[in-house]
Amino acid sequence: MTDVRQRTVNPSETTKSEIDNAKDQSDEEDDLAPGETTDPSTIPQGTEKTPDVLDGALKDINPRWRNWIIRGIFTWVMIFAFGFVIYMGPLALVLLVMAIQIKCFHEIILIGYIVYRSYDLPWFRTLSWYFLFASNYFFYGESLAAYFGVLLSRAEFLMPFFTYHRFISFSLYVAGLVAFVFSLVKKHYLKQFTLFGWTHVTLLIVVTQSHLIIQNIFEGLIWLLVPVSMVICNDIMAYMFGFFFGKTPLIQLSPKKTWEGFIGGALSTIVFGIVLSYGLVQFDFFVCPLRYDDIKEALSMDCERHPVFKVTEYNLPETLQCLFRIVGIPWTNMKIYPFILHSICMAIFASVIGPFGGFFASGFKRAFKIKDFGDTIPGHGGIMDRFDCQFLMATFIHVYYSSFIRVPNPTKLVQHVFTLKPEEQIQVFYMLRDRLLAKGILNGTDS
Amino acid sequence: MTDVRQRTVNPSETTKSEIDNAKDQSDEEDDLAPGETTDPSTIPQGTEKTPDVLDGALKDINPRWRNWIIRGIFTWVMIFAFGFVIYMGPLALVLLVMAIQIKCFHEIILIGYIVYRSYDLPWFRTLSWYFLFASNYFFYGESLAAYFGVLLSRAEFLMPFFTYHRFISFSLYVAGLVAFVFSLVKKHYLKQFTLFGWTHVTLLIVVTQSHLIIQNIFEGLIWLLVPVSMVICNDIMAYMFGFFFGKTPLIQLSPKKTWEGFIGGALSTIVFGIVLSYGLVQFDFFVCPLRYDDIKEALSMDCERHPVFKVTEYNLPETLQCLFRIVGIPWTNMKIYPFILHSICMAIFASVIGPFGGFFASGFKRAFKIKDFGDTIPGHGGIMDRFDCQFLMATFIHVYYSSFIRVPNPTKLVQHVFTLKPEEQIQVFYMLRDRLLAKGILNGTDS
Repeated sequence: MTDVRQRTVNPSETTKSEIDNAKDQSDEEDDLAPGETTDPSTIPQGTEKTPDVLDGALKDINPRWRNWIIRGIFTWVMIFAFGFVIYMGPLALVLLVMAIQIKCFHEIILIGYIVYRSYDLPWFRTLSWYFLFASNYFFYGESLAAYFGVLLSRAEFLMPFFTYHRFISFSLYVAGLVAFVFSLVKKHYLKQFTLFGWTHVTLLIVVTQSHLIIQNIFEGLIWLLVPVSMVICNDIMAYMFGFFFGKTPLIQLSPKKTWEGFIGGALSTIVFGIVLSYGLVQFDFFVCPLRYDDIKEALSMDCERHPVFKVTEYNLPETLQCLFRIVGIPWTNMKIYPFILHSICMAIFASVIGPFGGFFASGFKRAFKIKDFGDTIPGHGGIMDRFDCQFLMATFIHVYYSSFIRVPNPTKLVQHVFTLKPEEQIQVFYMLRDRLLAKGILNGTDS
Repeated sequence: MTDVRQRTVNPSETTKSEIDNAKDQSDEEDDLAPGETTDPSTIPQGTEKTPDVLDGALKDINPRWRNWIIRGIFTWVMIFAFGFVIYMGPLALVLLVMAIQIKCFHEIILIGYIVYRSYDLPWFRTLSWYFLFASNYFFYGESLAAYFGVLLSRAEFLMPFFTYHRFISFSLYVAGLVAFVFSLVKKHYLKQFTLFGWTHVTLLIVVTQSHLIIQNIFEGLIWLLVPVSMVICNDIMAYMFGFFFGKTPLIQLSPKKTWEGFIGGALSTIVFGIVLSYGLVQFDFFVCPLRYDDIKEALSMDCERHPVFKVTEYNLPETLQCLFRIVGIPWTNMKIYPFILHSICMAIFASVIGPFGGFFASGFKRAFKIKDFGDTIPGHGGIMDRFDCQFLMATFIHVYYSSFIRVPNPTKLVQHVFTLKPEEQIQVFYMLRDRLLAKGILNGTDS
């Protein structure tokens, strides 16, 4: 909060021409937010702040290249930091996602405060953070129960939290709702309801989707790394193709985006995705899910590989076979990791639909007349500016995984049976045996 | 839409004093919605419209009693209509919930249109209804798969919809998002994003919660009927106690609510809940879930009763036993349906927390300066006015059921095994046998 207030009194950061420009825009527009301020000096503008060391070193360079270099340096800083967290394993990544989620929530809520001039609304900040806490409590609990239920059921003192998880979460939420109703003040009804909605839409976008990311991590690191890298690759390559070859504007919302960047980005992403996937599928570390092994009684990343990570022989389609025969190559089939084929689908989504996450974010920023969501990363803007497409991509991967990749897992079903009482375990066993016998799948002598 | 436009030009419905009144209010308040109109004549005001027949019959009666009578008549009309739908069984109730959900969505979205004067926003209405469709497709599919998966897996042509359900739903949603981005028009960014948020908050409140109601229905009609009746009872009794004895105002948000009504309502609801529960638990029709019986190959409402619907003997607490001993009654235990005890918890929620759903709705209506959500039910306002507390209650019941009532269901687990391929079914069987043998739960001679 402090840094925003500082920015509002620092004239070097909002030039007069920026203000005039914003005023011109506002004349064109007949939409004004409730209590919205059109004076951009009070809204965070992504200050392009640069560490002093870099500033000194780059002061003689042409500004166009300068921003490119700063952005490039911090891209690599982020990539290396990310690499280190990957090296630390799945649980460190979960913590990273958690931290990013909190920062994104903070950035969006801060914009809400400022746009609706609601510094002084009673209890509002406390309530927003409380709802963030309550919804995270709910989602983390659900994920932990789904993936580590067997482990958690060992710790006696955790059992009530596990058994009554939904009830506790609901009580937390209802307490927040009751507090909201009590916090209502006649003068501010409209602002309070608007910000209540604002908080909930933010929770919907940030919290729910970041938990899908966490679930992707638990299915195997590759389900996080490949899509995240694809989005980054597409961002960078679209920027570079646009920078060097960009001519034809793509969409009114993001005037800097061009068709050249879009197409160059897409092709690069497909190639990059294939190469990266081929590299990662070699290592069990990336393809095996973290799970609780209840024979070894420890967390484990050993696994029988999922079929998509095993080399499989495919017959080539007839037409392709003909083509090859004509040029004298007798290829009729090929051996490939099926994951490589899936990675092509992911790359297409990342480069065709993924950018709409970014367009949506651009539209949002334009609606509220802000340049960036924050100024956390020099040359890049806020955390949310870098994650706008990641969220949509993560949801896609989650859905893609559960529709096309997930196979019913006999081991998990058996683990599920062991959450029952012993007499019910026996009951399941006999029911299953009788049904299998009746269907002739099992014959009498087997059992 | 038509009726709202009619209302805006019909002076008999918004009297001058109402307008002046609203103007006075708006002077006090410094919050104005984006493009919000403070002129109440353009916002639906709940016209207290009454069918002509009734109007004639009641014209000589004191207006205070008149509204009471109209409200009373339509309360009974609704109760009888509801009774008829119950008689038709669970699937008819699901359709009713669906219809109510659509009407509530319509009422809230209509308010959004009018408050933000967005009749002419490109594509907005179409997109709102499209998102309603997409989210319902998702939730209905999930519920159907969870409760009738075995049945659905019989119909070959439905299989792709079942297997790829999440992917189809996600694609539908993403198509809507892409359409939204393309529909953005520079002049209207702010309105468009505000209404996008409005639509999503409405979906969150109406669609998600109405699907919890549907899931409650599938667990047994009693899980719908008892809570719904409790909320109705609490509404009516609080109104009546308030009407006859009300003196002390309860909360600033709803000036008509009094402590006398609140307490009278709560006590009546507890007593009513006990009586109603005792009545309903006698019938299998109310306590058995609708499920697919894959031996009979038909939908069935026969069941082995859940333990909460079987008479159980409880030892009274020591202190109570002492008290009874002192007065010479040797009661040490009592026989009761456990559901009766649960119904007391539900009644307490319905009368203590439930009304906050109503307060929230009141605050919302005040924020946007509307009297009712619509004028669908004479004397009551819109459908949403009657369902504000029902939604919160349904969520409570859902959470309560899954935390305290649901028992792991061996039959469902076994059904789940049969969604696997035959060789995997065998695999589960042997894994289960080996584990049970290893744990000594099963001994060698059994199998």
